[in-house]
Amino acid sequence: MEWIGAAVSSQGVREQRFDVDCEGRRVPGILWMPADATELGPVALLGHGGSLHKRADYILATARRLVRHHAVSAIAIDGPGHGDRRADGGTDRERVRSDFEGAWKATDVTDQMVADWRAALDAAQAALGEGPVAYFGLSMGTMMGVPLIAAEARVRVAVLGLMGIWGPNGGRMAEDAPRVLCPVRFLAQWDDEIVPRERALELFDRLGTRQKSLRAHPGRHVEVPPDEMRAVAAFLASHLG
Amino acid sequence: MEWIGAAVSSQGVREQRFDVDCEGRRVPGILWMPADATELGPVALLGHGGSLHKRADYILATARRLVRHHAVSAIAIDGPGHGDRRADGGTDRERVRSDFEGAWKATDVTDQMVADWRAALDAAQAALGEGPVAYFGLSMGTMMGVPLIAAEARVRVAVLGLMGIWGPNGGRMAEDAPRVLCPVRFLAQWDDEIVPRERALELFDRLGTRQKSLRAHPGRHVEVPPDEMRAVAAFLASHLG
Repeated sequence: MEWIGAAVSSQGVREQRFDVDCEGRRVPGILWMPADATELGPVALLGHGGSLHKRADYILATARRLVRHHAVSAIAIDGPGHGDRRADGGTDRERVRSDFEGAWKATDVTDQMVADWRAALDAAQAALGEGPVAYFGLSMGTMMGVPLIAAEARVRVAVLGLMGIWGPNGGRMAEDAPRVLCPVRFLAQWDDEIVPRERALELFDRLGTRQKSLRAHPGRHVEVPPDEMRAVAAFLASHLG
Repeated sequence: MEWIGAAVSSQGVREQRFDVDCEGRRVPGILWMPADATELGPVALLGHGGSLHKRADYILATARRLVRHHAVSAIAIDGPGHGDRRADGGTDRERVRSDFEGAWKATDVTDQMVADWRAALDAAQAALGEGPVAYFGLSMGTMMGVPLIAAEARVRVAVLGLMGIWGPNGGRMAEDAPRVLCPVRFLAQWDDEIVPRERALELFDRLGTRQKSLRAHPGRHVEVPPDEMRAVAAFLASHLG
């Protein structure tokens, strides 16, 4: 785990850029911890949505809320073809969006993403100690999260959603969903213009856990009610003991 | 409003049986209020499920929670062909269940139920003062609730669910659902063996309000998670200001 630059602390939250190496790939990430913590403790993995990056507004807000209100650390990494994995830094959303299908085209990209997440978690736990693990990811964050959770017994709780048995790795998610066995809150948007409602319900249906709840609201893909977004941190923390 | 017997107070909750007259029908009800209250204040109408009655366990628990934790009064009345509307008192669930279709067969039973609820609310507010109104009803409680809320502008918030565009007044609910314009939390059971899942989603879909959320959980009709049932009172109270 290579720390990139100096940690920055603000209002009780220490934020630290890092890279980890995974199978020759440089995986760019951010770690948030309580400013006074010396051990990782419970940690949430935060997977961002398509065309965004590891420090997207709602990822940053969720990380800060986890740390400040629940003393839960957080780790975010850039998704495939996103953020600092790109030569251009991934700040131009339209450009990243136009490359989205390409980023997910390789047949092993899902396996690579799973390996990247595990490498980041392994490195953080090796450096800072082990603790229970949560996952939060909507839309592309669920495309990464379902295969990760299916492969990774350390994940004890998750918030997923805005995705279905659909898109570039829909077939893989259909296979992996029954192996998601931790408690899951699944968010869906009733008028989602990107992911068809029935495909999202199908993904919820296939999740293997019995401790799952579907929370659906009117509105388009990115219009999850603010209260529901704010509630993510408390739900994850409540299952991290 | 005729008080039946003496009020009984326990742990801060005063419970009082009453009857009201509506279009020649005797409507049996219960009023719960804070033991020290002299005015009705905010009030929740609690509609019980099929084969049950106005003092079913979860109705009583919700009423007590509303009063104790939120200082919200509660009113429950017996549904058509249920409870004290029956000569046998409606305590034999199997017998009441076997009469269910008959109780809802009359073409005007839904209109009668709406009138009965309004008569109970009118009488309570006339006797004890006005305040904002909530509605809670699952299964048959939603069969009563959707037409009531569509007709009754006093209802500001509702928890509905375990019902769909289905059953003896499904057509009526399809007509009335678009006129439900208050915030609604809608509970659905993913493996409901009585109400088909698609019919429940259709009812949620038709509700006219934009402030609606669907909360679905695995399990059969009567297996709503206890945490979700306990959360009903807080949700209603949060919208009664």
